[in-house]
Amino acid sequence: MMGVGGTTRLYGLIGDPLHAARSPRLFNELFAERRLDAVCIPFNVKAGDLRQFVTGARTLRNLAALLVTMPHKEAMRELVDALDPTSQQAKVINIIRCDADRVWTGATFDGLGCVLGMEWEGNNPQGRSVLLVGAGGAGRAIAFALAKAKVRELTIYDMNERAGRALVEALATETACDVRFGAPDPAGYDIVINATALGMQAGDPLPIDIDRLEPRTAVVDVVLRSAPTPLCAAARARGCATQDGRAMHEGQAVFAARFLGIDYWPPERSCTPIGEIAMALVTQARNREATA
Amino acid sequence: MMGVGGTTRLYGLIGDPLHAARSPRLFNELFAERRLDAVCIPFNVKAGDLRQFVTGARTLRNLAALLVTMPHKEAMRELVDALDPTSQQAKVINIIRCDADRVWTGATFDGLGCVLGMEWEGNNPQGRSVLLVGAGGAGRAIAFALAKAKVRELTIYDMNERAGRALVEALATETACDVRFGAPDPAGYDIVINATALGMQAGDPLPIDIDRLEPRTAVVDVVLRSAPTPLCAAARARGCATQDGRAMHEGQAVFAARFLGIDYWPPERSCTPIGEIAMALVTQARNREATA
Repeated sequence: MMGVGGTTRLYGLIGDPLHAARSPRLFNELFAERRLDAVCIPFNVKAGDLRQFVTGARTLRNLAALLVTMPHKEAMRELVDALDPTSQQAKVINIIRCDADRVWTGATFDGLGCVLGMEWEGNNPQGRSVLLVGAGGAGRAIAFALAKAKVRELTIYDMNERAGRALVEALATETACDVRFGAPDPAGYDIVINATALGMQAGDPLPIDIDRLEPRTAVVDVVLRSAPTPLCAAARARGCATQDGRAMHEGQAVFAARFLGIDYWPPERSCTPIGEIAMALVTQARNREATA
Repeated sequence: MMGVGGTTRLYGLIGDPLHAARSPRLFNELFAERRLDAVCIPFNVKAGDLRQFVTGARTLRNLAALLVTMPHKEAMRELVDALDPTSQQAKVINIIRCDADRVWTGATFDGLGCVLGMEWEGNNPQGRSVLLVGAGGAGRAIAFALAKAKVRELTIYDMNERAGRALVEALATETACDVRFGAPDPAGYDIVINATALGMQAGDPLPIDIDRLEPRTAVVDVVLRSAPTPLCAAARARGCATQDGRAMHEGQAVFAARFLGIDYWPPERSCTPIGEIAMALVTQARNREATA
């Protein structure tokens, strides 16, 4: 913290609660490594206070970005000036870039980050059949990223059938993806993805019918815990390859940093098809700065 | 910066410009030394944006304090919930404590900090005759602190005679100080204090008639620069003891930290009469927290 001075640019993480937040430390390690005069700090703001907070934050001349987490991901959409295509599709915002001309652009990298993480972990979804459980903010973002990654076929399930079918409809209209609404039955799929919060709380039911899970199916869980998630543990017991939210989180950080113009790529990770999209982001962000 | 996480409390320095600001580094060194989960960050806000910024900042649940600098010191008075006596007298705010019950209390320690710095440097004003030049925010704060420190007599001068006479009037009404409006003629005083900004810019005139300065007079300049200030240099050439803004700045930091409940005292500095007031502040701040 001794490096923070009058010229330091702010990267705020806005949410409530924030006690378990990981991004400040991640970003501050990156800033220290790159010797950037920047700091990532928590802005603890309650759901009902969001609009009032944003009104004030708009006056900050040294605010570079806002990272957006619960409960503000959806409400924030109404409060930015522009939406990246990722946020138009997923209808949530995870990150806002505050440009020099004071235009705020919202984006979400849950989806691209998840697919990048899958590619890294050997679960490249291209040409595969995928069951996606969960059509909330993360699920919507992942569905569009799977379409971009050219899955062979995609089945979506959500307990809220209306939400699930709306997402199927949006994908069918806006992408070339072969997509349908289905059941939480994993039998026959190459990859199964849990994009619900099931597994965060002790005693949560599993998101899929585990007895129907075949050993050849790879299981991807967006949940991130220190111990294996219940879904990953059960899938491994059945002989499946698994990955939890860790690689997705790392993939998302790559996209988020590059969207902000920070040329970050984890040294031990290879470039991949979706990674190419991330690679292009720094140049775009810098060109935008140069013309602003 | 690697220590900042989701639970970190924010100490914001609000002002414009901020590139030369010293307080973030001072406070962050203190936080690191005390292992406090806190960070001092710059909030760069233009004069016209203050009210809007404060509206937003009111929503921040992890905001512990605001340090207030130019150009917001006067305007901020209208935007807090309570004024410490120091700010009622000086009509400026340097610091705001944001208590757990979300009450914002403004204070200014320019005055007490200046007197504490004078005591440290062997220029204790108690029982002495003092010429104070400048009746702006710093001058007003210093005048009331001199009254509290029991100067024998105080002469105030300001180019703006109305401002100078208003301060004399306020002191005469609110304190037992023997005070009058006078000229910037240093002859015959024990101590001369420059509380104007003269000396900040190259080519500024000296704030007093230097030819009338006697060697026995101690000269205190609130201006802080890396080189000696023009006033201090001229006074030293005439054989006077001098001190620039450094000790005042340090004294102010002691008061500010203690007002926020941080038990700080520079190890190499002794306790002094005005220092006793600072000593009491931590207990007060902590009691307030306990009852909130």
